[in-house]
Amino acid sequence: VNAPASEFALIDRHFRRPVQHADVRVGIGDDAAVIAPTPGAELAVSVDMLVEGRHFMAGADPKALGHKALAVNLSDLAAMGARPRFALLAGALPEPDEAWLDAFMQGFRALAQRHDVELIGGDTTSGPRNLCVTVIGELPAGAAITRAGARAGDDIYVSGTLGAAALAVAAARGNVALADADRDRLRARLDRPEPRVGLGLGLRGVASAALDVSDGLTGDLAHILEASGCGATLEWARLPADPAIAARLDGPDRALALRCLLAGGDDYELCFTAPAHSRASIAALSHALDVACTRVGVIDAGDALAVVDRDGAPLQPLPRAFDHFA
Amino acid sequence: VNAPASEFALIDRHFRRPVQHADVRVGIGDDAAVIAPTPGAELAVSVDMLVEGRHFMAGADPKALGHKALAVNLSDLAAMGARPRFALLAGALPEPDEAWLDAFMQGFRALAQRHDVELIGGDTTSGPRNLCVTVIGELPAGAAITRAGARAGDDIYVSGTLGAAALAVAAARGNVALADADRDRLRARLDRPEPRVGLGLGLRGVASAALDVSDGLTGDLAHILEASGCGATLEWARLPADPAIAARLDGPDRALALRCLLAGGDDYELCFTAPAHSRASIAALSHALDVACTRVGVIDAGDALAVVDRDGAPLQPLPRAFDHFA
Repeated sequence: VNAPASEFALIDRHFRRPVQHADVRVGIGDDAAVIAPTPGAELAVSVDMLVEGRHFMAGADPKALGHKALAVNLSDLAAMGARPRFALLAGALPEPDEAWLDAFMQGFRALAQRHDVELIGGDTTSGPRNLCVTVIGELPAGAAITRAGARAGDDIYVSGTLGAAALAVAAARGNVALADADRDRLRARLDRPEPRVGLGLGLRGVASAALDVSDGLTGDLAHILEASGCGATLEWARLPADPAIAARLDGPDRALALRCLLAGGDDYELCFTAPAHSRASIAALSHALDVACTRVGVIDAGDALAVVDRDGAPLQPLPRAFDHFA
Repeated sequence: VNAPASEFALIDRHFRRPVQHADVRVGIGDDAAVIAPTPGAELAVSVDMLVEGRHFMAGADPKALGHKALAVNLSDLAAMGARPRFALLAGALPEPDEAWLDAFMQGFRALAQRHDVELIGGDTTSGPRNLCVTVIGELPAGAAITRAGARAGDDIYVSGTLGAAALAVAAARGNVALADADRDRLRARLDRPEPRVGLGLGLRGVASAALDVSDGLTGDLAHILEASGCGATLEWARLPADPAIAARLDGPDRALALRCLLAGGDDYELCFTAPAHSRASIAALSHALDVACTRVGVIDAGDALAVVDRDGAPLQPLPRAFDHFA
């Protein structure tokens, strides 16, 4: 952290706290934080940048945004099977708005505390609103679940449900009307995603590959296939659709519902693969954590992703994935 | 890194490279990077965000900007005495401009290679131009040079020269006219600062406190005093002024020159303290690295920073520090 005068008052008030963990040797307020990693552990490190007008709208609830800025990063650690430990927060704000920053940090800290994550560094500046969070997690040596470990014959799983966040975006844009009973649940999925940290930890030594579904299932699964050098068949009818998506799959909103389900971003569920002999372990883990883990397809030795109907017929056309530069 | 379609093409072409270091277990292209820290080492972690219109002007040379975005972070590691190892780069760009990104990465990578820093992660998105770099360095356990170790009687040093970058900013704003002979040197100090990495490493076990002069010497030194619970007297006439600053200290631009010298940002020199018995070590280090280390004052048991003339008279008024939110 290098910043002067009024900016410092902001940092002191909102960011600085007494150091919480003994392995944080130097916390916020020096040129760099210093941490003492657990002997033998490996560290997973990820960074995500959230931009106003792109990842959230102007006027977005700052408390929800504080939650989400950390959540999307913890989701990356979950996908590696890493235990979240530390975070750094860099932010540009149009003006030093204390009330906004206070609410943002409430959302950020509440999620950080639930996962025992310590904020160890930061940077603040004026500029178009932009939140950039770096997270550091710990892993036993060699335990990282990468995208490259899927093998032909492995099952493909998805946690929780898909499509809710994208349907909330569609509703916010006026492209679909939601029932009152659905509105809050869908909006919460978009604004306050829950990173699957416990599931990621439980999948160490069980899953052969994993990633988080942040950009849409088909696009994200394609990354596993590319990294692992294999193909897959996905049975779309088995996908764990949010109820509001499921209800639209046979009506006039079918195309939209399919797009939310297969290519909707922002769900932050885990998509993972595992050999068939792990089915019982995964069922037990799912039960213990109360997180649905649905088997949705199988990895094969090809090089393509086939999305098929119940009868094995390919789904055509495949909904397009979301593109940040589209 | 989580990003789709055209954005992926950008990442692949500009960010991804074969993993260079054996302790990078997972590099760019997964949900998170995974590193295996050197056994027993501590890690220094810092993040800095550079915003267009605030830290650099629209139209800034992208290659210089790539250098600077990493340099300001390596400077933070240098100030802790840490050896730079890894970097993560998150960036928002108004459009996926290949030529711009290519030039930016050239500047970034050239500096990274000189310090053997590996880029292990990133995130790209569209948005107002914003570069956020996270760096990770290594330190022997307990070796970090913090801001809190200065003690009464310690000497205060400044590396290199001060004031050049701020004078270049003043010239760019039309507040001062530069001689042709000075223009390129000053501009290079602003646009392509050289982080004092070697000096920082050499100061382990020698300096009692250190930070980098990013916001102006008096403001930055005040952070050492606050963190260390002491005061200081700074003899401003001993400060290692850039020649173009020195030439202006007795003329009509005196006020501007003093402000650049004492409160100018962006020099990225190190300010550090050390007990008097370390003078010979510091002289030897300075000679070995060919980096001037100038003794400019002394720490005392008070709680104030006095900036004095050759005759001990206080300099009044003290130039104000730069404020990002001013």
